[in-house]
Amino acid sequence: MTAYPKMTAEERKAEYAKVTKEYEDLKARGLKLNMARGKPGKAQLDLVSDIFDLMQKPEDYVSDGVDVRNYGELSGLPAAKRLFAEILGCRPEQVFVGGNASLQLMYDTISKAYTHGLLRSERPWCREPVVKFLCPSPGYDRHFKVTESFGFELITIPMTEEGPDMDAVEEAIKDPAVKGMWNVPKYSNPDGFIYSAETIRRIASMKPAAADFLLMWDNAYCVHEFEGDFVEFPDILAECAKYGNADMVFEFASTSKITFPGGGISCFACSEANMAYMEKLIGIQTISFDKVNQQRHVLYLKDKAHTLELMKKHAAIMGPKFRCVVDALDREIAPLEIASWRRPTGGYFVSLYAMPGTARRTLALCKEAGVTMTGAGATYPYGKDPQDSNIRIAPSLPPLEELEQAIAVLCVCLKMAALECLGV
Amino acid sequence: MTAYPKMTAEERKAEYAKVTKEYEDLKARGLKLNMARGKPGKAQLDLVSDIFDLMQKPEDYVSDGVDVRNYGELSGLPAAKRLFAEILGCRPEQVFVGGNASLQLMYDTISKAYTHGLLRSERPWCREPVVKFLCPSPGYDRHFKVTESFGFELITIPMTEEGPDMDAVEEAIKDPAVKGMWNVPKYSNPDGFIYSAETIRRIASMKPAAADFLLMWDNAYCVHEFEGDFVEFPDILAECAKYGNADMVFEFASTSKITFPGGGISCFACSEANMAYMEKLIGIQTISFDKVNQQRHVLYLKDKAHTLELMKKHAAIMGPKFRCVVDALDREIAPLEIASWRRPTGGYFVSLYAMPGTARRTLALCKEAGVTMTGAGATYPYGKDPQDSNIRIAPSLPPLEELEQAIAVLCVCLKMAALECLGV
Repeated sequence: MTAYPKMTAEERKAEYAKVTKEYEDLKARGLKLNMARGKPGKAQLDLVSDIFDLMQKPEDYVSDGVDVRNYGELSGLPAAKRLFAEILGCRPEQVFVGGNASLQLMYDTISKAYTHGLLRSERPWCREPVVKFLCPSPGYDRHFKVTESFGFELITIPMTEEGPDMDAVEEAIKDPAVKGMWNVPKYSNPDGFIYSAETIRRIASMKPAAADFLLMWDNAYCVHEFEGDFVEFPDILAECAKYGNADMVFEFASTSKITFPGGGISCFACSEANMAYMEKLIGIQTISFDKVNQQRHVLYLKDKAHTLELMKKHAAIMGPKFRCVVDALDREIAPLEIASWRRPTGGYFVSLYAMPGTARRTLALCKEAGVTMTGAGATYPYGKDPQDSNIRIAPSLPPLEELEQAIAVLCVCLKMAALECLGV
Repeated sequence: MTAYPKMTAEERKAEYAKVTKEYEDLKARGLKLNMARGKPGKAQLDLVSDIFDLMQKPEDYVSDGVDVRNYGELSGLPAAKRLFAEILGCRPEQVFVGGNASLQLMYDTISKAYTHGLLRSERPWCREPVVKFLCPSPGYDRHFKVTESFGFELITIPMTEEGPDMDAVEEAIKDPAVKGMWNVPKYSNPDGFIYSAETIRRIASMKPAAADFLLMWDNAYCVHEFEGDFVEFPDILAECAKYGNADMVFEFASTSKITFPGGGISCFACSEANMAYMEKLIGIQTISFDKVNQQRHVLYLKDKAHTLELMKKHAAIMGPKFRCVVDALDREIAPLEIASWRRPTGGYFVSLYAMPGTARRTLALCKEAGVTMTGAGATYPYGKDPQDSNIRIAPSLPPLEELEQAIAVLCVCLKMAALECLGV
């Protein structure tokens, strides 16, 4: 197969006619497939539904002397703190266990900074003339939207295989209006990169001009390998403390992709000084999060080793889906030299870089053929991909046979859009 | 028994010696009893723990075609909306189903008003020079603290048997800085009053100067009778709509005192215009609340009639506790003319008015004798009871035999404090 950029105009014309025919055939099938979101598939949900067999015995209602059914224990059950602390490598007293969504804990952390200020804030961020936030991109659209919704100015930081471009970060944080940075440090969303030790060292030792700089460390995929063994990852709390930055970081995690997306538990982890400060604020907002579900998860997941065993079972479902996507791209697209991607080993996404200027068109074609993908531009601040290139593929939801169809559609659409861009 | 105010100084002196002796005897027992919070007792938790037997069959995981275990359905399961709508008398599309705490939904409503503004706000409340909030008092300390934490000025509105003093309210809302009012309209916290039809009409037809006036309607005890039959109560959403105030009100409820305080579900109800506005904001904050627990509650509570049957069983536990408290007060304190109270028929509290100037002293004495009560002043804005009189009694947590001891301690402390105040 000749690479598209190397084809003559004639050849491209012929190829375009061929792929257009393929596209029309696929469209005629009336597909309705969804690869828009990192949503676990039914097999993964069924895998963990024996969690409902728990909480049958009266002794299960009590944890460390606390009746989990009643009010109290603002920061969560001690046993739930121990579980998350072991998984994250921090200490239980640094963990606050929340409800079913770490996104909500992240939003609330930003919201509290805005309404009340953080531990080291001179004033609430709503009293600042401008607040700027660093967004390593491509990144997670929901992160960017949280900070956008509070009117912050989003600053794009390029992503590299090692993590955010730290030269750009170190330059940006000289501005005292720059108040924080988003991160998905392990299996970054969408690229699947793992921040390198050197990047983590540079992040942990930053000296931002803003005294209340907020490092948002969303460790969403902390145990989410789908190829190979569990990859150890440093405890960012200890790393920051090492450089005198103990109060700079809030880490987040959840069981949304370990047990249930709709009914898991979440946590944030931070310094004990931050914890004392946040508990005072959160104590006005609630009496506690759902301790019954915390206890259910403690009984079900038991500890890190047992959780990692469960993640192997998720991997057995996820792995083939990712291989299906990347194999198809390798086979269908690689020879054409119209896009690039990597083979991730964990997380929930394949990040594809289409020929600049073709992502939007590719996704429009997909949609027309019944395949819903994450919107073009979504992985950049304000939903604007300057290159119109990045496409986030989320292979987790469709069963394998549907996924094969969906990726076939995507490949054809990539070809059409590239040919249109090159000229046909 | 002679009433204390009618006693001679001699008589009071003798009486004080007698009750001090009684107090010392009680103190010597080394009690550790808690009547501080409206916390259900263990018998109530055990009553509903068969809820854990549900969610065993795969068909239970699906509700109206939605897999409750996965992401999605921001505003909650349709079936959970129908359940709350039937209980509150509103329409399902007016209901947003949240997590385990209605307090959190209330906080977030205020917080969103502060950070983003409400549907009819000209600007976010954080951009207002002053925000004032009406607090019918005595009232719920956690309500007052939410608005206090955002720096609002709290304005005390006297409570009457009919609800808030509406003359005072109608005068106060002429000030455009007055942005809202707290309410516990059925079995008010702590007095146990039910707002009268006329009060509700006057509230629903208010014409506040603030276009974005926020009527916080915490229907916490909507089905919480412990004496007599269920008392029908008007749908505040329809009432407000009748007077052109559809967007003025947010109503709140939860199952915290129907199933589990730590693991129930909650909701807010509002106009559809408000719902559309709030969903846009909340959609940035979370993907959905815990739909697994919503489904568990739908399967367990079924409908209003079935919920009311369950509440009769709670009443069989709660009723004797309240009778124990009020009977003791009637017997021990009524003849002394040093305090007044009413016999509530629902809710979670007995509101006692001690001789002015003696509440703080009474509660300090209780604490010294091992009986923890809600702090003096807690039922007023800023924790300051201008009369130092109101004492909130929460009889739900202790078993009956402990409650008898606790109330005996309270009675002796009331006597001591009153005698000290009258002069001994």
